[in-house]
Amino acid sequence: MEKLKEHLKKFIDIDPIELEEILGYFKTKMVAKKENILEEGQVCKYHFFVLKGILRKFFVNEKGVEQTTEFAIENWWITDNMAFEHKLVTSFYIQAVEKSDLIYISQENQEKLVAAFPIMERYFRFVYQRAYAAAQMRVKYLFSLSKEEFYHDMLRKYPEFVQRVPQYLIASYLGFTPEYLSEIRKKINL
Amino acid sequence: MEKLKEHLKKFIDIDPIELEEILGYFKTKMVAKKENILEEGQVCKYHFFVLKGILRKFFVNEKGVEQTTEFAIENWWITDNMAFEHKLVTSFYIQAVEKSDLIYISQENQEKLVAAFPIMERYFRFVYQRAYAAAQMRVKYLFSLSKEEFYHDMLRKYPEFVQRVPQYLIASYLGFTPEYLSEIRKKINL
Repeated sequence: MEKLKEHLKKFIDIDPIELEEILGYFKTKMVAKKENILEEGQVCKYHFFVLKGILRKFFVNEKGVEQTTEFAIENWWITDNMAFEHKLVTSFYIQAVEKSDLIYISQENQEKLVAAFPIMERYFRFVYQRAYAAAQMRVKYLFSLSKEEFYHDMLRKYPEFVQRVPQYLIASYLGFTPEYLSEIRKKINL
Repeated sequence: MEKLKEHLKKFIDIDPIELEEILGYFKTKMVAKKENILEEGQVCKYHFFVLKGILRKFFVNEKGVEQTTEFAIENWWITDNMAFEHKLVTSFYIQAVEKSDLIYISQENQEKLVAAFPIMERYFRFVYQRAYAAAQMRVKYLFSLSKEEFYHDMLRKYPEFVQRVPQYLIASYLGFTPEYLSEIRKKINL
């Protein structure tokens, strides 16, 4: 919870006593590598925050292949937002890429929290604004970059991340087969 | 401004006197069909809200083709969020698809507004949360649906919208040529 406290203080000015009350709305969870914290067909009740580790969100396409749509690393929130907001059944999975420490909050508690502490509206406004901007850029890249360019861009912008995540998941995020990624990597190393 | 007032009241409980002050942060603008309100290379200073009409956001790809990434109809906000938040030069255009009535607010005024009226943090939290959820679904559809399925899905969910927008722009949004769209439409009408 200390890490969440430090994180929140970066975004909002907050009284230390209020901050302790705010932390009471969140819970912690440790998950093993490859553990699913959300599965297709479940009602999406929680919003997850990564303290340590990596989560990924994926769906299984009609060919039975896992398509990764998002990663969340330290200090990012992740959920199926459409399902979370409306308490609907999700068509996504969220899975731990490595052993991870998480914070999570239920949809009801998030609503109660922002009602009780309007400063948290400001915090979540920042969270969603940043995430929305990132999603807009993702859509642009999906249209403007070839798959190979997309990989090079990722490697340039997030070299540590690309090292940290198994290559078949990077391939799944970029929308190509592990074999194709391996060919691209060979070309770079030539 | 009456329309904006009605819109805001749907999201937040607000004192009528405060509401009048809040409206003072926004300006109105009428734009002609095909008028650009943002162009590639400009600093993205404004956040636009559609009172009446349709806006679209696009970029020009390396082949010189306009790729539409978003539409905004009545009661939606649109901007290049990454550039807006950080006052950066944009790589997008925003253009009126039809004659439109808009509300807009500068980045500075939006910051001042949420600082002066915390209830507006709640409003913008809703705006960004909804937009983020929609962008997440867009990414999923880009991976899971063929271009033809994407068109059928749009036709089923937003029939009026598909009627209202010129077909070459629907094609641009879906990422295919107007000729290909015309073929798909012929198949439907057979």
